[in-house]
Amino acid sequence: MKIRIAKSVLVEAVAQVSKAVSQKTTIPVLTGMKAIADQEGLLLTGSNSDITIQVRIPHVKEDQEQVFVEQTGSVVIPGKIFGEMVRKLPGEYVEWEVNERYQITIQSGSTEFQLHGFNPDEYPRLPRLSADQVFSIPADELRSLIRQTGFSVATNEARGVLTGVLWQLENGVLTCVATDSHRLSRRLIPTPNTGQLSLDNVILPGKSMSELAKTFADDEDSVEIVVADHQLLVKNEHIEFYSRLLDGTYPDTNRVIPQCGDTELITSTRELLQSVERASLISRDGRDNVIKWTMSDDTVEVTSVSQDVGSVTEEVKARVKGNALGISFNARYMIEALRSIESDEIRIQFTGTMTPFIIQPADRDDTLHLIVPIRTR
Amino acid sequence: MKIRIAKSVLVEAVAQVSKAVSQKTTIPVLTGMKAIADQEGLLLTGSNSDITIQVRIPHVKEDQEQVFVEQTGSVVIPGKIFGEMVRKLPGEYVEWEVNERYQITIQSGSTEFQLHGFNPDEYPRLPRLSADQVFSIPADELRSLIRQTGFSVATNEARGVLTGVLWQLENGVLTCVATDSHRLSRRLIPTPNTGQLSLDNVILPGKSMSELAKTFADDEDSVEIVVADHQLLVKNEHIEFYSRLLDGTYPDTNRVIPQCGDTELITSTRELLQSVERASLISRDGRDNVIKWTMSDDTVEVTSVSQDVGSVTEEVKARVKGNALGISFNARYMIEALRSIESDEIRIQFTGTMTPFIIQPADRDDTLHLIVPIRTR
Repeated sequence: MKIRIAKSVLVEAVAQVSKAVSQKTTIPVLTGMKAIADQEGLLLTGSNSDITIQVRIPHVKEDQEQVFVEQTGSVVIPGKIFGEMVRKLPGEYVEWEVNERYQITIQSGSTEFQLHGFNPDEYPRLPRLSADQVFSIPADELRSLIRQTGFSVATNEARGVLTGVLWQLENGVLTCVATDSHRLSRRLIPTPNTGQLSLDNVILPGKSMSELAKTFADDEDSVEIVVADHQLLVKNEHIEFYSRLLDGTYPDTNRVIPQCGDTELITSTRELLQSVERASLISRDGRDNVIKWTMSDDTVEVTSVSQDVGSVTEEVKARVKGNALGISFNARYMIEALRSIESDEIRIQFTGTMTPFIIQPADRDDTLHLIVPIRTR
Repeated sequence: MKIRIAKSVLVEAVAQVSKAVSQKTTIPVLTGMKAIADQEGLLLTGSNSDITIQVRIPHVKEDQEQVFVEQTGSVVIPGKIFGEMVRKLPGEYVEWEVNERYQITIQSGSTEFQLHGFNPDEYPRLPRLSADQVFSIPADELRSLIRQTGFSVATNEARGVLTGVLWQLENGVLTCVATDSHRLSRRLIPTPNTGQLSLDNVILPGKSMSELAKTFADDEDSVEIVVADHQLLVKNEHIEFYSRLLDGTYPDTNRVIPQCGDTELITSTRELLQSVERASLISRDGRDNVIKWTMSDDTVEVTSVSQDVGSVTEEVKARVKGNALGISFNARYMIEALRSIESDEIRIQFTGTMTPFIIQPADRDDTLHLIVPIRTR
């Protein structure tokens, strides 16, 4: 293998692939990045036990030559050092040569690195996914989907499927659901042109979700999503992101979501968020981070009391319909839900002091957060 | 105590004082911040076992009323929560009231916090320093002094006085020296008008040095420095920074600094730094982070070899006078020295392969770094 490549292009591709490279593993070859130089350009792959990221650098992009392949070939290059090295190289171009014993020479400006590579045949093969179950959504929608649900997954590995996000596709609507059994987040996205395609019980690990959000740019270009038995693949023209899926059956969450409320609260997302953040300063050291809301006609009174620290009380202006109500809950759950909402106003619906309540942007109902209240004295 | 204070002013003062507040301590009152409201305004104090920071907020600043004291008094307020709380308060002004049981009420906008305070009589008293040994330097010189020496202190607590920076004042020149016995940094600053004042063996802990650099703004206003037996005080009109001094006798470092060189190297600080940073990618996992320089007429060849990782070699253009020379040293020491130098060009003087060498900005000799080479095969 012998190539010449624009440094800026290589830096960007290596930064993408690095996110999937294992830092600690008992399999040395997985700490490396696989490089294949062929007639089309350079293909870089990084992989760990959860995800695989593959980036293709085409020979030419927008009439500019990005990579010139003098001799095809492949190698696995040590990942951590390579990632830092390419950023620090002095020249505009990088010459990259590999000999038959997988000794790698990287040359740029007057700098020459020699690195010990691995035999690429030792690198695990990517799964081949059948292209049966395929649909596409804009990349920015994918990112907002993740941002608005990912924080609600259970973080304790022992919780099984609840550490993942459920993906369902039915009647042209993609639904993502995450819950740790104390709170739940759900987001719907219309997916026209999905025809008869229907998906159920596709469970993506929470960690893969956050890496996925970082992998694709925040723009309106579509990404293609391919679902197989144990893998999900998200790709565009240059990047392929594979994640394993979680085994098991996700619980039916529809029956825990109340369909209507006896008390409805509409107010400013930002003002309510800030009041909860302040109250949380008092409650956060307690076991459940409990704060209390007491609703009257035109205000929510936010209070929190801690024997050790002290107390806080304040009022937030709001439009309240229905029965007056007092309710206690975990401030962190509320903060995370409110921070994920982009609308200026929110609507919260309650059915009682001890039943789950629902938080939604006031101007749309494709997004829903549910919090289970806490019984207090 | 009962005061009304502009929030922005309080936020800034609390951020300053917070740096000295103990996070973990067996003395609960030290986790707090002492507040004294008197006729002149508000005085805030934070303290830990090393340093004390005191900030005065005067009643009026530039004809603007900053703090209005309705009732004088004092209290110790829980430090951590107070620091975060003031930033999050909703109003432009903060009302702060303390009752006779040290219960604190903080009110701003519609928010009201109640906090449990401590009896201010339990708070340790500040040392009173006699004003015998006093001089002053511009705050930006103080910061550059710290930035250019602080990194060379020993970090292992067992190294005693070497964990501190030596301050010496003689013949109108302030000299700061730090060494961990493998490298040394020295910076001189002229201090006119210090008359007969002479200081020796004043040793400021390395940690206090870095906090000190963060405390005063990077401007030309002077700060006053007061030296007593076991304390050093740096102050301006509103801020007082106290640090304990280290006991013990600092070694005489003058005799380890060679007075002339057989080989002299002059080159670009930035290009040399970048080449050492690249070479360090190969050497950093080794025990001593060893890289090698080989000097010829107009280049320095930078090399590093690691059995596990590979090797690097590159050439940096330089003006070399005197004997050709090869020398090995710890790359981290060189990186830290070169990063602290602001001049575009540096001068390095060598007396031999196994003797300490000296790094200086090419255009000034008030700054000096020394590195002890490493014997290699």
